Amino acid sequence: MIREQMLAAEKVKALEWRDKTLYLLDQRLLPQQEHWQGYKTAADVALAIREMRVRGAPAIGVAAAFGIVLAAYQHWAHNAANWQATLEADFAVLAQSRPTAVNLFWALQEMRDCIAALGDDKNPLPAIEAQAVAILNDDREANLYTAQLGLQVIREACSTPQHVMTHCNTGALATAGFGTALGVIRAAYLDGLVKCVHINETRPWLQGSRLTAWELVGEGIPSLLNVDSTAAHLMAQGKITWVIVGADRIAANGDVANKIGTYQLAVLARHHQVKFMVVAPSSTIDMQLESGVDIPIEEREGAEILYLGGQRVAAQINAFNPVFDVTPADLIDVIVTERGIVTQPNKQKMQALMQQSETS
Amino acid sequence: MIREQMLAAEKVKALEWRDKTLYLLDQRLLPQQEHWQGYKTAADVALAIREMRVRGAPAIGVAAAFGIVLAAYQHWAHNAANWQATLEADFAVLAQSRPTAVNLFWALQEMRDCIAALGDDKNPLPAIEAQAVAILNDDREANLYTAQLGLQVIREACSTPQHVMTHCNTGALATAGFGTALGVIRAAYLDGLVKCVHINETRPWLQGSRLTAWELVGEGIPSLLNVDSTAAHLMAQGKITWVIVGADRIAANGDVANKIGTYQLAVLARHHQVKFMVVAPSSTIDMQLESGVDIPIEEREGAEILYLGGQRVAAQINAFNPVFDVTPADLIDVIVTERGIVTQPNKQKMQALMQQSETS
Repeated sequence: MIREQMLAAEKVKALEWRDKTLYLLDQRLLPQQEHWQGYKTAADVALAIREMRVRGAPAIGVAAAFGIVLAAYQHWAHNAANWQATLEADFAVLAQSRPTAVNLFWALQEMRDCIAALGDDKNPLPAIEAQAVAILNDDREANLYTAQLGLQVIREACSTPQHVMTHCNTGALATAGFGTALGVIRAAYLDGLVKCVHINETRPWLQGSRLTAWELVGEGIPSLLNVDSTAAHLMAQGKITWVIVGADRIAANGDVANKIGTYQLAVLARHHQVKFMVVAPSSTIDMQLESGVDIPIEEREGAEILYLGGQRVAAQINAFNPVFDVTPADLIDVIVTERGIVTQPNKQKMQALMQQSETS
Repeated sequence: MIREQMLAAEKVKALEWRDKTLYLLDQRLLPQQEHWQGYKTAADVALAIREMRVRGAPAIGVAAAFGIVLAAYQHWAHNAANWQATLEADFAVLAQSRPTAVNLFWALQEMRDCIAALGDDKNPLPAIEAQAVAILNDDREANLYTAQLGLQVIREACSTPQHVMTHCNTGALATAGFGTALGVIRAAYLDGLVKCVHINETRPWLQGSRLTAWELVGEGIPSLLNVDSTAAHLMAQGKITWVIVGADRIAANGDVANKIGTYQLAVLARHHQVKFMVVAPSSTIDMQLESGVDIPIEEREGAEILYLGGQRVAAQINAFNPVFDVTPADLIDVIVTERGIVTQPNKQKMQALMQQSETS
């Protein structure tokens, strides 16, 4: 039943594939402007990812997959004999668009595997397009199933409506569908288990105040915005019972890279005995990396901190702007993916999760 | 020697008393504009405090004292017979300007005591003006002496240059002189004990990026700006050895109210075994309040979070905007005031500090 309610509640999309064009809702302009733009080349999609017109680990994975589809259409039309070799530059430009979220690299590898498996004898385009569409649809399905698993975790722990804090945006705008952490929060709200969502504004890019607030208010979910520095104050007052966040990369030992500020929320949650849940598709798990220390952390331009709305606000100083941080597994109560639930994650449990077949 | 170096390094002022006028540097416009404005009435000074044209616990205490001087000049000229009674409305409007920093109420009480001690037989204005000037000069002296005590604490703990994090603005702009926490940082820098100052931007009002960065860069002190959410990430990388902050009110048990975000810095500092120092004049200590629970926490308009530079950035959501929080004494390694140094503060030690005579 929750699945149908969730589908009925869907209002927002980050991307659409239509008429051999990838359409992206420009997230830099939200919530003031809902501007959709069509993309026809892998280079333009890579630029859109780099500039965060599309963002969120699962959504950039999906966008990158369609970047390869666009490239394949282009090269097949111009150079059918040598189209695969020409595609390498497109793989490279997409892979270089952002470094931290592994979903991007995962989706590119899925596309590469698909192309490698193609015969030489026929038009490869339908199969390539179908692969990207499958990545999109799988992410939607994973969202829906993960939301139900996350709801189950909350239901087993609590019988009264909860006060949830979330960070960044992990909703429809960050995925191909219902959202990861925000998907769980939505499902819990539909189930009567959410009293209020406290949204961290999430400096410097304000994913919280611009995107998450827009999604939640649009669905009528009770929510309240605060600056990131208010988290501990709210926890000390007993106003937060769960912190629920997404992930950009999860290492083999359960360490989680996510939006800058996530790590300190985890430390604060532990100090205040607030439960800490991470929600992500299993494509976010990178079993190649032993621990979070190995996850590359993107540093973006200081201008994101020094300027507001095009106006310089800060003094003539340099800024340090890492946009992700790493939360060690031992500060995480539970990781929820479409493959299952991992409580108190560690290397053995993450291995067991990845070895079992996909449930959804 | 440090005292002379500190005086030589002074470049910035928040306020000036000149020609029976209080001049305030409008801190809302910094660092883009250095706009000084003259104030002639208590009501205008109260508005300047409320609107944060002048801010910082010690500076608003000094400004309020001069607000009473302005009121006394005004009432004595118009109604010499009944000037004291007329002053009550001015005391009230100044006391209502901001609720958390106790220095404001302390300074008003000092002015009230001064006026109560006056004889009826002569012009009271010189004595009233002299009292406000004394509050200003005492704050300057307290700053200079406290900075030396704070430096002594760092010197005793460390022999190599330190990586300091600070929050909000506690410099010349927040005081009548050299600054509180920033005064200690300046003195430590002059003494060769500061490698880099990491400045939290301090949302929502950006005291860090607009004011502290401006002061430190202006003095050539190596510093780097970050969003508030980066604090734990920096600490986890071993990049912070001291957190040094100011205070708006300190309760009798050593609990400290300060800018929102200070409490979570203290939790994070303890988690990472980073030292946590609070620096404030003893006028910030309120022995009437048993603990931090009793400190009134100002909540300002949500607009401070929802809008940036006059433009709405957030979705149609309400914001929770408490601008202070309370750090319990047991998370504080040391409180430094002009009366002395209190390590691991508690009720007994705070009492002992306040009972001894002023050192400076």
